[in-house]
Amino acid sequence: MEDTGLYLRHMRETAPLVHNITNYVAMNIMANVVLAAGASPAMVHAREEVGEFAGLAQALTVNIGTLDSDWADAMETAARVMSGQGRPWVLDPVGVGATSFRQDVCARLLDLRPDVIRGNASEILALAGVASTGRGADAADPVEAAEAAARELSHQTGAVVAVSGPVDYITDGAVAYRVRNGHALMPRITALGCSLNGVIAAFLVGQPALPATVAALAYYGVAGERAAQAAQGPGSFQVGFLDALHALTPEEVTAGARVEAA
Amino acid sequence: MEDTGLYLRHMRETAPLVHNITNYVAMNIMANVVLAAGASPAMVHAREEVGEFAGLAQALTVNIGTLDSDWADAMETAARVMSGQGRPWVLDPVGVGATSFRQDVCARLLDLRPDVIRGNASEILALAGVASTGRGADAADPVEAAEAAARELSHQTGAVVAVSGPVDYITDGAVAYRVRNGHALMPRITALGCSLNGVIAAFLVGQPALPATVAALAYYGVAGERAAQAAQGPGSFQVGFLDALHALTPEEVTAGARVEAA
Amino acid sequence: MEDTGLYLRHMRETAPLVHNITNYVAMNIMANVVLAAGASPAMVHAREEVGEFAGLAQALTVNIGTLDSDWADAMETAARVMSGQGRPWVLDPVGVGATSFRQDVCARLLDLRPDVIRGNASEILALAGVASTGRGADAADPVEAAEAAARELSHQTGAVVAVSGPVDYITDGAVAYRVRNGHALMPRITALGCSLNGVIAAFLVGQPALPATVAALAYYGVAGERAAQAAQGPGSFQVGFLDALHALTPEEVTAGARVEAA
Repeated sequence: MEDTGLYLRHMRETAPLVHNITNYVAMNIMANVVLAAGASPAMVHAREEVGEFAGLAQALTVNIGTLDSDWADAMETAARVMSGQGRPWVLDPVGVGATSFRQDVCARLLDLRPDVIRGNASEILALAGVASTGRGADAADPVEAAEAAARELSHQTGAVVAVSGPVDYITDGAVAYRVRNGHALMPRITALGCSLNGVIAAFLVGQPALPATVAALAYYGVAGERAAQAAQGPGSFQVGFLDALHALTPEEVTAGARVEAA
Repeated sequence: MEDTGLYLRHMRETAPLVHNITNYVAMNIMANVVLAAGASPAMVHAREEVGEFAGLAQALTVNIGTLDSDWADAMETAARVMSGQGRPWVLDPVGVGATSFRQDVCARLLDLRPDVIRGNASEILALAGVASTGRGADAADPVEAAEAAARELSHQTGAVVAVSGPVDYITDGAVAYRVRNGHALMPRITALGCSLNGVIAAFLVGQPALPATVAALAYYGVAGERAAQAAQGPGSFQVGFLDALHALTPEEVTAGARVEAA
Repeated sequence: MEDTGLYLRHMRETAPLVHNITNYVAMNIMANVVLAAGASPAMVHAREEVGEFAGLAQALTVNIGTLDSDWADAMETAARVMSGQGRPWVLDPVGVGATSFRQDVCARLLDLRPDVIRGNASEILALAGVASTGRGADAADPVEAAEAAARELSHQTGAVVAVSGPVDYITDGAVAYRVRNGHALMPRITALGCSLNGVIAAFLVGQPALPATVAALAYYGVAGERAAQAAQGPGSFQVGFLDALHALTPEEVTAGARVEAA
């Protein structure tokens, strides 16, 4: 990973349409994050149209945060379209350890071969079938505790697996990276993790999954660092974060990225 | 159109209750926009109560952004109440060109005679039955390309049709105006267009539809221009935009409006 | 009520997981409010998992803002779990006076014995079965008009009843307090009242309901006063409010609280 900023440049030139089936909490901020980054978001979930719409998008994200049975069906339908057309899709297994319903839905979604799975350490541990102490959307487990599970999950599914935390860990099962960007206020703003999925999906279009995911996480973290410089708390941080996603140049991302082989 | 600010003054004195059936992405920012402008928003969609609630409101907005069958039924129920009582309602045909489901729902809603239809050029073209290249909520077509379709749609439906874009175009089929207010950052914030529907609906209460719609768009654009003065990106723009909607006086709107006969 | 700040300190040390079944408008800002205060929010409503999830949470909030039948069932399921385990839950009867559907759902929820009921004066009047002029989520009635109804409702249900307004009124039927904190911009930001429910729920964990509720309202109001100092309108107020919730110390809350016996 030498030039993370090039992935940002490519994404902005492509400005892909990203279809998101995400939770109600995340919808607005996620759309604003994807717009600020330079891509085009659409939030569509109805059974009556989700498959047709997925055919129009360059990438898809699926987030099980506020799940019910209808939405689970829509997620499957859209993911099947993307897999069938060889277009990338990202799975965020929010709170998968919390209820058996979420575990069942995730098992069905994993069969549809997401290109990237992103979660916190507890979620990746739960998804890999390892006992976890997850509660809600918190990341009770440290990232390090989930690294072996991430590699195993990558082997099981063929996906790039990204574990979000103070230091992110991203692996395709063979190679792994750590991204040391970001700021402690980021988990104090709801749905910033969910919103990151949309940025990853946009970066995936026309690019190999592992470096594109690493570059997306580095860009996101550099934006968080810039936002923190003027923030007085989580309210002003969120404002500055959207401004930073919009303002950051590829060169600034490359200069600010702290990526290392793991 | 001489004194756009008078419509803002009348709206604030009336402070109408505006019933909104809108998409999940827009709900929060739309409520905040309507509150900041000086009206009173309510978001109600359940089949069990939507008709009863519509009877309490002075105006209605319907936005098909995150649609499903239940919501489509609720939209019809509420629109029928408003039409039956002679109260104004606004239709926003989000992404109508993208799926056949959206086209079917819009056809049913047009039968209930909206007072105003507002969309981007691609949506107005699609709704008028003209081939379009629309994708998601983007405005891929320029406003000019939709002017003839807007007049045709107005003739077909009896509605005032407003095409949003860098320069807005508003027509009742006979007379037309252009509004040259606004700022390039506005489409980079999600759901600002959806939120405008609530402001239009509030302006419609007790006023003729064409000048009220023009005045609402001018007010919105002037607020965008003010917000842009201090904005450093889409995050701070959104904050400043709500502040500007709240702070602008009728006199400032009249002075800043750039409205011309088309 | 001597030391309101101690309740904030206890809440932050506990950092409880608060399960929220709330309306779509409120979900994002409510999660951000609860995070900024120092607790951990989760938004879960699906029939398939809501009971299982409620068992994991330390407290629950139920808000009927954007209601339908499925959600009403989920609310009952979750409230029954909390009541059965002796864990606190808060009911917000949004717009209960507006439709008979809301009245029916509230009647069912009251049977499950909420620990705290919080609403504006119109809602508390409607819930106590007293004629009201409520429309939507507005507070058309003054707080004083609802004080007798609040005491009666508290007697009927065993709940602490909090009436939000320029001066809040909180009673357990025997003892009552007034909280004179807050700012006039607060009702101009959508869902700040809904979001307060999450803060109350977090304060309730391991504390007696009456003083914990009073302390939560005082903390909220002090944060509003701080936010107003630098705000230029509702947009910047909301940003500063989240910053203030995060930054305020227990000592500052104690110093700023204006609580008196009623």
